[in-house]
Amino acid sequence: MKEGNTLKLLEERILKDGRMVGEEILKVDSFLNHQLDIELFYEMGRELKEKFKDKKINKILTIEASGIAIASIAAMHFKVPVVFAKKTESRNLDKETYESKVYSFTKQKEYTIRVSKRYMNENDRVLIIDDFLANGKAVQGLIDIINQAGAKLEGVGIAIEKGFQDGGKILRQQNIQVESLAIIEELKQGQIKFKRYEEN
Amino acid sequence: MKEGNTLKLLEERILKDGRMVGEEILKVDSFLNHQLDIELFYEMGRELKEKFKDKKINKILTIEASGIAIASIAAMHFKVPVVFAKKTESRNLDKETYESKVYSFTKQKEYTIRVSKRYMNENDRVLIIDDFLANGKAVQGLIDIINQAGAKLEGVGIAIEKGFQDGGKILRQQNIQVESLAIIEELKQGQIKFKRYEEN
Repeated sequence: MKEGNTLKLLEERILKDGRMVGEEILKVDSFLNHQLDIELFYEMGRELKEKFKDKKINKILTIEASGIAIASIAAMHFKVPVVFAKKTESRNLDKETYESKVYSFTKQKEYTIRVSKRYMNENDRVLIIDDFLANGKAVQGLIDIINQAGAKLEGVGIAIEKGFQDGGKILRQQNIQVESLAIIEELKQGQIKFKRYEEN
Repeated sequence: MKEGNTLKLLEERILKDGRMVGEEILKVDSFLNHQLDIELFYEMGRELKEKFKDKKINKILTIEASGIAIASIAAMHFKVPVVFAKKTESRNLDKETYESKVYSFTKQKEYTIRVSKRYMNENDRVLIIDDFLANGKAVQGLIDIINQAGAKLEGVGIAIEKGFQDGGKILRQQNIQVESLAIIEELKQGQIKFKRYEEN
């Protein structure tokens, strides 16, 4: 891996509209996870499609809530349906579900994610898409569900990876294709430093 | 109002892929709120844009989780950002928020929805989009937030309205433009009957 030279679309936007809260928290809720810049998402989806163009993907899997928008817009480029794992028990969810436990460091508790067995099976070739990758617990839960279904994981597409946490590293060590549109290597004294993996 | 004659896109899909559970519950999770048919959403978004073509809308407001996908895809036609109200308290949400209480009949409890004050103000002309309209409590909560922000409500766009509950009626009585892509008038003995409002 090496450092890239030119800023990419999402990196530019993070520098322009990301807000530092204190010296270590970066807020991107003006365009990524509260207010959503759909045109940006469309271009991000195009980039993800390009990165996974050699994979035969027939389904995108994400997790509620803030993964849904980027997964849905990206799906327009992949021309496949999206399934989102549910975090809350719902009367409306089928009883026959794949389940996995996910620990949230943000909320400091474990929650259960669920996907109906109707919507994931051994014929599926699945791309996981989410807005953030930090410690990777949510993605590991989604992979657990894909494995339970006997489906094939084709890769993981992420908007912003926190490169100073080890979720991405653990996934790449398992030979999973992980593509993050921006990887933040360091947040220090209000400065953002991006990391690049070598382009093909 | 009168009954329409030809089935519309979403109505056709409900008849084809909706599943009746018992005689009174219609499940649409194969294409609308668990697995998402993004191509269908794109056409639904086109219909919503057509219905609100005379309104100057600069923002779409929805509520997590299952409203996010239809709002985001519809936003591609409106070319405006989406804001989604959050249902859960989050460390990442600003402290300065508009809040409203919403009672959920499905979950039989009240919850609080929140929108950061940064993302809604008196210059906004807002279209609310959600996947379902039944008793209308969620939409009323979103309208409350729009009012607190001093923004202008331009209308409400819905995928499926349960016409046998009174949410849509109450909104229309307030002279709000409510456009539902499918209105279920009756679910009886496993049969679905749609209702139509007169086309312009």
